[in-house]
Amino acid sequence: MEFSSKIIEQAVNTFAQLPGVGKKSALRYVLHVIKQSNEEAEQFAHLINKLKTDLKFCNSCHNICESDVCGICANPARDHSTLCVVQDYRDVMAIENTGLYRGTYHILGGLISPMDGVGPGNLNVDTLIQKIAVGEVKEVILALNGTMEGETTCFYVFKKLAPYTITLSTIARGIAVGDELEYADEVTLGRSITNRVPFNTMFTVK
Amino acid sequence: MEFSSKIIEQAVNTFAQLPGVGKKSALRYVLHVIKQSNEEAEQFAHLINKLKTDLKFCNSCHNICESDVCGICANPARDHSTLCVVQDYRDVMAIENTGLYRGTYHILGGLISPMDGVGPGNLNVDTLIQKIAVGEVKEVILALNGTMEGETTCFYVFKKLAPYTITLSTIARGIAVGDELEYADEVTLGRSITNRVPFNTMFTVK
Repeated sequence: MEFSSKIIEQAVNTFAQLPGVGKKSALRYVLHVIKQSNEEAEQFAHLINKLKTDLKFCNSCHNICESDVCGICANPARDHSTLCVVQDYRDVMAIENTGLYRGTYHILGGLISPMDGVGPGNLNVDTLIQKIAVGEVKEVILALNGTMEGETTCFYVFKKLAPYTITLSTIARGIAVGDELEYADEVTLGRSITNRVPFNTMFTVK
Repeated sequence: MEFSSKIIEQAVNTFAQLPGVGKKSALRYVLHVIKQSNEEAEQFAHLINKLKTDLKFCNSCHNICESDVCGICANPARDHSTLCVVQDYRDVMAIENTGLYRGTYHILGGLISPMDGVGPGNLNVDTLIQKIAVGEVKEVILALNGTMEGETTCFYVFKKLAPYTITLSTIARGIAVGDELEYADEVTLGRSITNRVPFNTMFTVK
């Protein structure tokens, strides 16, 4: 694409760095910003700066927050003996939205994926082990994606945590609520049968 | 969606104002910016500000440029007697990329679309008529989308320009190069037959 203005070109290239955004979409966004009022565009630029200056990562769980420790870790009403290991901030949001979990979190910051150049060293596993070593945590729930990368990371974390006397579990894999059995893949259906749940525990909220 | 941080929430809402971006994509973009280096994020914010402060609209054709008159209007080598009327900046880019047009442009800034609240008054039609009234322009080419909105706008501009002694044309509607006849819709195929082109003029570059 050839642009009549250097500024548009730079702006398009910058927007195109966002995940899943190509040059055509980037140009649409740039033209939208040009059409915005001065105040709106200033506010946009200001918020992008603020994302870097005002946000921190929680010292304990690596969640994104505005202070040194996030609201969940600092909350004495949460169950600090249960730790849920997740990939990133969006998973914390998703689990919080269920309203069914009262423990704390630990964010790995990614999944092991040699294809994308992410190895175990790039994940927040050391701080997880340090946290377990203190002894306060009794149960660790691995809540990672059901993908190859998620399963690999699950297994890696499981191996690392094996020496400690804690309860280790992973979230259940199975048929999604509302899904039909006949369309489920064999692996998922197989797992949902192997890991079947006694009927009376199914609706119990912990 | 519930966010743990007010800044993230504001940033997500701002990104979600971009055309075609929902809250989920906006959150992906925000998390991407948080992961960027300070310099990258600063540059991003700086460019957004620059889009508003450094860019202007051409006094003559309403194209986006960095000075009062755009490079195309200021270029004496372009044919100023031919004017191509387009919807927006992207259409100028698209036509320039063909390398087959040496005239100038006039950007309407939109298409008549009552559904989106865009009426004839919102388009740059008055400045178009002023330009025609000067008498330098001999031919006007309407290069608007083949949609309902494009055709409506085409007809509106045609009516407005009818009193002036200029050649008025629209770009040809027909079968795209590389397309197969059997998959073309009837209206397009019908038009391509009605507006058939003498064989020897087909490959002539003006």
